[in-house]
Amino acid sequence: MSEQTVWNDANSLVERIKTLRHQVWQANMDLQRHNLVTFTWGNVSGIDRESGLVVIKPSGVEYCELNAENMVVVDLHGQVVEGKLNPSSDTATHLELYRHFPEIGGIVHTHSPQATAWAQAGRAIPALGTTHADYFYGQIACTRALSDEEIAHNYELNTGKVIVETIGDSNVMASPGILVKEHAPFTWGKSPAQAVHNAVVVEVVAGMALQTLQINAEVDTLNPSLLDKHYLRKHGANAYYGQSKK
Amino acid sequence: MSEQTVWNDANSLVERIKTLRHQVWQANMDLQRHNLVTFTWGNVSGIDRESGLVVIKPSGVEYCELNAENMVVVDLHGQVVEGKLNPSSDTATHLELYRHFPEIGGIVHTHSPQATAWAQAGRAIPALGTTHADYFYGQIACTRALSDEEIAHNYELNTGKVIVETIGDSNVMASPGILVKEHAPFTWGKSPAQAVHNAVVVEVVAGMALQTLQINAEVDTLNPSLLDKHYLRKHGANAYYGQSKK
Amino acid sequence: MSEQTVWNDANSLVERIKTLRHQVWQANMDLQRHNLVTFTWGNVSGIDRESGLVVIKPSGVEYCELNAENMVVVDLHGQVVEGKLNPSSDTATHLELYRHFPEIGGIVHTHSPQATAWAQAGRAIPALGTTHADYFYGQIACTRALSDEEIAHNYELNTGKVIVETIGDSNVMASPGILVKEHAPFTWGKSPAQAVHNAVVVEVVAGMALQTLQINAEVDTLNPSLLDKHYLRKHGANAYYGQSKK
Amino acid sequence: MSEQTVWNDANSLVERIKTLRHQVWQANMDLQRHNLVTFTWGNVSGIDRESGLVVIKPSGVEYCELNAENMVVVDLHGQVVEGKLNPSSDTATHLELYRHFPEIGGIVHTHSPQATAWAQAGRAIPALGTTHADYFYGQIACTRALSDEEIAHNYELNTGKVIVETIGDSNVMASPGILVKEHAPFTWGKSPAQAVHNAVVVEVVAGMALQTLQINAEVDTLNPSLLDKHYLRKHGANAYYGQSKK
Repeated sequence: MSEQTVWNDANSLVERIKTLRHQVWQANMDLQRHNLVTFTWGNVSGIDRESGLVVIKPSGVEYCELNAENMVVVDLHGQVVEGKLNPSSDTATHLELYRHFPEIGGIVHTHSPQATAWAQAGRAIPALGTTHADYFYGQIACTRALSDEEIAHNYELNTGKVIVETIGDSNVMASPGILVKEHAPFTWGKSPAQAVHNAVVVEVVAGMALQTLQINAEVDTLNPSLLDKHYLRKHGANAYYGQSKK
Repeated sequence: MSEQTVWNDANSLVERIKTLRHQVWQANMDLQRHNLVTFTWGNVSGIDRESGLVVIKPSGVEYCELNAENMVVVDLHGQVVEGKLNPSSDTATHLELYRHFPEIGGIVHTHSPQATAWAQAGRAIPALGTTHADYFYGQIACTRALSDEEIAHNYELNTGKVIVETIGDSNVMASPGILVKEHAPFTWGKSPAQAVHNAVVVEVVAGMALQTLQINAEVDTLNPSLLDKHYLRKHGANAYYGQSKK
Repeated sequence: MSEQTVWNDANSLVERIKTLRHQVWQANMDLQRHNLVTFTWGNVSGIDRESGLVVIKPSGVEYCELNAENMVVVDLHGQVVEGKLNPSSDTATHLELYRHFPEIGGIVHTHSPQATAWAQAGRAIPALGTTHADYFYGQIACTRALSDEEIAHNYELNTGKVIVETIGDSNVMASPGILVKEHAPFTWGKSPAQAVHNAVVVEVVAGMALQTLQINAEVDTLNPSLLDKHYLRKHGANAYYGQSKK
Repeated sequence: MSEQTVWNDANSLVERIKTLRHQVWQANMDLQRHNLVTFTWGNVSGIDRESGLVVIKPSGVEYCELNAENMVVVDLHGQVVEGKLNPSSDTATHLELYRHFPEIGGIVHTHSPQATAWAQAGRAIPALGTTHADYFYGQIACTRALSDEEIAHNYELNTGKVIVETIGDSNVMASPGILVKEHAPFTWGKSPAQAVHNAVVVEVVAGMALQTLQINAEVDTLNPSLLDKHYLRKHGANAYYGQSKK
């Protein structure tokens, strides 16, 4: 490479990470704006796929003290590349998802109450209506419980692994969120902002689903044709919802 | 017609649509003010009955970016008459209701959580108290599910048709809202503002009804005499609620 | 009476009603501040016992348009003494309570959702904890349903009568609120402000009671000794809660 | 002691109590900010362990009238040392806890609705997920009911005694809160601020636990390995959550 190319690439990387820091900080603040977090119980990360660098919230820092500058930059092996603070204690979970699913650009973890109740109950959130189908192509799965061994060693990494296991061969972007049993939801998207969007959806849908079952304990899951219709009119090849396809 | 008459009529139409744009925009913003919408999950339209023109929210645009000018004007066949954005993806549903029910001046669709839970449960909201009876003369009905065929072709139009089918011969203004099974509520009124008002009522009444059943699963529906009393003291020929009849 | 006495009495009455107008307006606004009302679904009144004049909210006027000046003054027979607007459609209910219970200085009616759910369910709110006992000396009763005849003629007056019937010989101030079956709560107090305070308590206690039963359907009502202790430490002859008895 | 030492110690005490007044006032205001209190239904205290002086909220004073100066200073026997207002009616409960548990630096009492529902139901909040385990090392216990005798004499002191009895030999800081049956929660911490933090956690966890049981009535309590993992990664000797251990 010419020196010019090296110089240009370096500049480009610096600019991209600066932008990503801002996006990840903004997405973290949006968790609070959408009432998804109590105290510091949530974190957002984003990845720069070209370099493999991940920007993530620092661990246990109050939302009012967060800014783009104190976000932490780590590589895909968890080494801190830039930043003076510890990265989120859930970093290893995020990284496992980024390594397995190249489609993912941003990840969110919260303990939002209604989704967390489903995770604690160990139940997938069934697709019961079009609100769900507009974003999730089928149920929002719940992982199995981790074994004692998985908890004892590399717990956060194993949390990522059980998510990967649960997704299996299905399309990770068609159901962009999951419940970790006895724990809480994780969501993802093409960007940190989209992952936050999906975290809001999981919380709203979780609350609706419980109320639906309280009204009618025998309710059937959504007609697959209606699931297709709603999911595909927003996300399919011939999507016609919104302005972007015009 | 004289040129003067043509000129006056044109001016009058332009003014009316300008006013309606403002009303429809305001009504859309009120959905958010009343906490009925998450993201862009709701839409309001209004009709100018003299011209048959309908003003409706554009599809998938954030509430903070809405203004009177970017509302979309369509005719009763769904042709965009004015506006650069796609109209709401639910436009065909709105138009079907406007075509069948000349009394309707405004329509609202939301995914407000408590009403949506009843729609997902496939259950009409029973009239259980005077809060309900002040606005709805009987239960808030729930449509049947759409068939696979109805979903596959002209889904949004068929959503309107199943609402029309469910209302049947009953007075469309006496129960100004309905639940579309597996989907969410639609409400209407003489104006966009009244349709929003009724959307709030449906959400409040939906929440109260679930709690009522949780307290007493054997509760009877409202005494028909009390339903009459409350509905008619607000909406009957001899209404005496409020200031308007004085 | 000397002319001076007549003059002084007149001045005194005018001042007292002016003050009461302000108190009643403020109490109505407080309903909104405490999230007890949707739209105009609530009203507060207050009485000047010396003159027998009652100040009450006008019917169906938006909260943002209320002020001390547009409150309506009626006598205990419901004749409007001052004011251009119709008084609340529930005025006859308020007046019946003022006529029967000279201890009452202010009355509130709301459709606050959790208390309304209990009223719709036709169930008294049992005393399940000290929060309840701090304000209500026993259950919050629910009236019987009105008969068709009672609904057809003088409905609002009969709503007052069934409240009076339900209270019977018990101490009206020891349980300063009631649920009207199929309808919603009424509360009262020495003043309009205290009636609002009790309306908040009924709503909070209603919500807690439902949740309590959901956690433990077999729960016993509060130990009578504990009911005594909490009620009397705030309201008994030897009350020691707060600063007022020092 | 030299006069200088006496002088220095006095100055130091005055400064510490001044600081503690501010902390306790701030913690009381934070109860309101976190939506844990209705009206005056909550109180926070803090202790200066060197002198044994306790700063506590005055009884029945509105939150908007509280300030650092009107907090009340009492000794561990309940004698008011400084302040013109009555201390909280629950002071004797707080003091009993401070006398028995030297680790406690601050105490909170609220009637927060979801935790109060569990207390009214007489049920401990089971550990059902990691949100719980991040703060409470096992269930949040519920005391037995007080006897008539315990209610009749020294009620508030006996409330403290039944809390002490319920904690027994277990580590008071490992489960920093408890439900008093038929009443409401108490929480504590190293400082008034930490006690408020734990009061928020109890309320959130109480709500999640009820929802969890509504989704799955047969749910198991948390895997003890996961309880250990989450509690110890925040509170154990090798804690790695947050920034403080770096």
